[in-house]
Amino acid sequence: MIKVDLQYSGLKDLKTEISESKIIEIHNMIQNKSGRGNDFLGWVEWPETFDKEEYNAMKQAANQLRSKIDTLVVIGIGGSYLGARAADEMIRGLNHIDKVKVIYAGHTMSSTYVAQLTKYLKDKNFGICVVSKSGTTTEPGIAFRRLEEQLISQVGLVKAKDLIVAVTDASRGALKTLADQKGYQTFTIPDDIGGRFSVLTPVGIFPLLVAGVNTDNIFAGALAAKKTLNANDLSNPAYQYAAARYLMNQKGYKAEALVTYELQMQLLNEWWKQLFGECEGKEGKGLYPTSMVFSTDLHSLGQWIQEGTRNVLFETVIKVKTPVLDANVPVDQANYDGLNYLTNKTFHEINSIAIEGVIDAHVNVGKMPNIVLEFEKMDDVQFGYLVYFFELAVAMSGYLLDINPFDQPGVEVYKYNMFKLLGKPGVK
Amino acid sequence: MIKVDLQYSGLKDLKTEISESKIIEIHNMIQNKSGRGNDFLGWVEWPETFDKEEYNAMKQAANQLRSKIDTLVVIGIGGSYLGARAADEMIRGLNHIDKVKVIYAGHTMSSTYVAQLTKYLKDKNFGICVVSKSGTTTEPGIAFRRLEEQLISQVGLVKAKDLIVAVTDASRGALKTLADQKGYQTFTIPDDIGGRFSVLTPVGIFPLLVAGVNTDNIFAGALAAKKTLNANDLSNPAYQYAAARYLMNQKGYKAEALVTYELQMQLLNEWWKQLFGECEGKEGKGLYPTSMVFSTDLHSLGQWIQEGTRNVLFETVIKVKTPVLDANVPVDQANYDGLNYLTNKTFHEINSIAIEGVIDAHVNVGKMPNIVLEFEKMDDVQFGYLVYFFELAVAMSGYLLDINPFDQPGVEVYKYNMFKLLGKPGVK
Repeated sequence: MIKVDLQYSGLKDLKTEISESKIIEIHNMIQNKSGRGNDFLGWVEWPETFDKEEYNAMKQAANQLRSKIDTLVVIGIGGSYLGARAADEMIRGLNHIDKVKVIYAGHTMSSTYVAQLTKYLKDKNFGICVVSKSGTTTEPGIAFRRLEEQLISQVGLVKAKDLIVAVTDASRGALKTLADQKGYQTFTIPDDIGGRFSVLTPVGIFPLLVAGVNTDNIFAGALAAKKTLNANDLSNPAYQYAAARYLMNQKGYKAEALVTYELQMQLLNEWWKQLFGECEGKEGKGLYPTSMVFSTDLHSLGQWIQEGTRNVLFETVIKVKTPVLDANVPVDQANYDGLNYLTNKTFHEINSIAIEGVIDAHVNVGKMPNIVLEFEKMDDVQFGYLVYFFELAVAMSGYLLDINPFDQPGVEVYKYNMFKLLGKPGVK
Repeated sequence: MIKVDLQYSGLKDLKTEISESKIIEIHNMIQNKSGRGNDFLGWVEWPETFDKEEYNAMKQAANQLRSKIDTLVVIGIGGSYLGARAADEMIRGLNHIDKVKVIYAGHTMSSTYVAQLTKYLKDKNFGICVVSKSGTTTEPGIAFRRLEEQLISQVGLVKAKDLIVAVTDASRGALKTLADQKGYQTFTIPDDIGGRFSVLTPVGIFPLLVAGVNTDNIFAGALAAKKTLNANDLSNPAYQYAAARYLMNQKGYKAEALVTYELQMQLLNEWWKQLFGECEGKEGKGLYPTSMVFSTDLHSLGQWIQEGTRNVLFETVIKVKTPVLDANVPVDQANYDGLNYLTNKTFHEINSIAIEGVIDAHVNVGKMPNIVLEFEKMDDVQFGYLVYFFELAVAMSGYLLDINPFDQPGVEVYKYNMFKLLGKPGVK
């Protein structure tokens, strides 16, 4: 359901540029869990093995919560919110009107943001989904304290208990203890799935259920990806994409821009940035993952892409074949703007033609290589498919770089510094 | 009002690395309008010379429009909306509740976005501000057709006339003709100020007035910048920043990330990306401008920044000294999360300490150079100041690269391709 088109990449036949036996070897490492970081490969089987009982319990809890609130505040940082937000925006869109509005917190320590959010929530019937494996990460920790206090002061201790859900470790950690002691319902972050791979676990699924997204379809899409992206060699589209970007890196390119022509996929790009940046950016390696949204960024970064510094960046362009909704350009008899020549086309047709024109301009005139990924539709099924596609791709490309794709040792450095400066007990 | 701190940049005393006489020479080119692109230097004097009569007319028109609507749709792409949006979000914040909500269109051809937006607007009292110098740019052109038709069908032809305002050329172009013929009020985009420098012209000011932002203060901030950033040498903070990033580029760095710790400044970063990318990205030159929002991106790109590929990216970190609003961390006697040690600090204090910790981690452990820009507060005055600071800086850094900072020839290539593929009359 995803087509990888390398004709604009400047790469020749992949098989002549990379050893297919290396691909097969890594495929086996992923499937047999025999490579570095193999404690964190739970996502590989997840579309089949996820806990059905917990899933049903989540559906029930989400329905109850949904019936009581108009606003859900998801408190989490990094992988603890990016996946849910990417899914919510891609599937429901940016100006979707629904019973429950989802708002995010705990991903910033901006005092102005937090203070404005507490004002905004004053007359809302809000619930909280707090997501943290440990419960001691500073950003979501202090945001949760603040909003928990507000909720209790707005509805009282008894009612608040039913409006707070924690997604956390099965048995250990500060958030698990807190939730158990205070009587908040909890769902589990599996031990063998890291934050950036967690969107199909309760981390992403619970908030999406409250938002009213069809998560059965998301799982169906992920399962379809698991089943169809099963070739062990370069006929596998996920490995084609992994190999292509690895080769671009080898040829000296330092950065990749994931390009979307759909505003509502911007957060998917942000999710992708974490997935690839955090998996690959270690031991002095890894492409710098960046994001662009066209047309708007054509009138911003377009000039640099067309004529700026060469041999640093390549683009990976996502094309959506079928629109969820389409729209016509109305006829205007006066035609002052001269746009009547477009009235026989829909917005989606015009957008698709723009993609062709831009690729030609960037690649042939600008000498900016493009990888093109084409998928069917911005719906729940395809979201699940895309997630699995990128997860499988980054496992391959990470192992091609000869690093451990599943750890993140560098994230600890700033946390340690911060704890020390803040005077956290026990940190020296 | 802006301090440029280079102690973490790895650069020595600027005067030993760059010829100060070159800085003075370019300063004179900017002030005397004697360099390349000198037709587009209207922004230099603008905080003093802007048309006061038109400004008063705008205030009147904006007040009238504001009294009639709950939603303003700003239709524009690139410089025609980024400045207004950056100002609106930085000054009013992300969860601000006000009489008028501002929504953007014409910056995308996504059919789903447009179709959802038209649904969303069905029960709104909306007005339109369409911004385009020519009126023939496809993206805003087709969006305007669609929303103009909707507005007329919702309120009738007569009422719609008072709800549509065009910001466009003084006398020529399709949008000017259209507005005059149909009886829509117009305000003027000056001929000598390019799109990416236009936020202080009616392009940015009219939508901000409708949104209820204090534009007098924005102008006051810009004027203060014009007056205080007046040194002709490296004592000028704008030139310090320009020289520093130029030197980083000369040393082999290919990309710059503007880093904010305030979510509501994300759009200012997007505006900055256009300003620097479009000014500098030509003749095979220019840093790739990218953006990050911390803390959230520390749990996404943080790993790559800390340990990924070196000598490609440097960070320019924006520190805000004083918060607009602050918030405390509540005391929780049980202290399950162990965060009571933070209850004597405000969010802003914790955020400021995080900045220190992150800079130390990135610079000293990660060997990722940092430029630090410190300013006072996220308010209207400071927004005007920042705008002028960056505009002056990019003029200097563009001329240091020996290119014309004020044209954008590369943006035409994709437009031409698109027109040809769409069968625009007269394009071969």
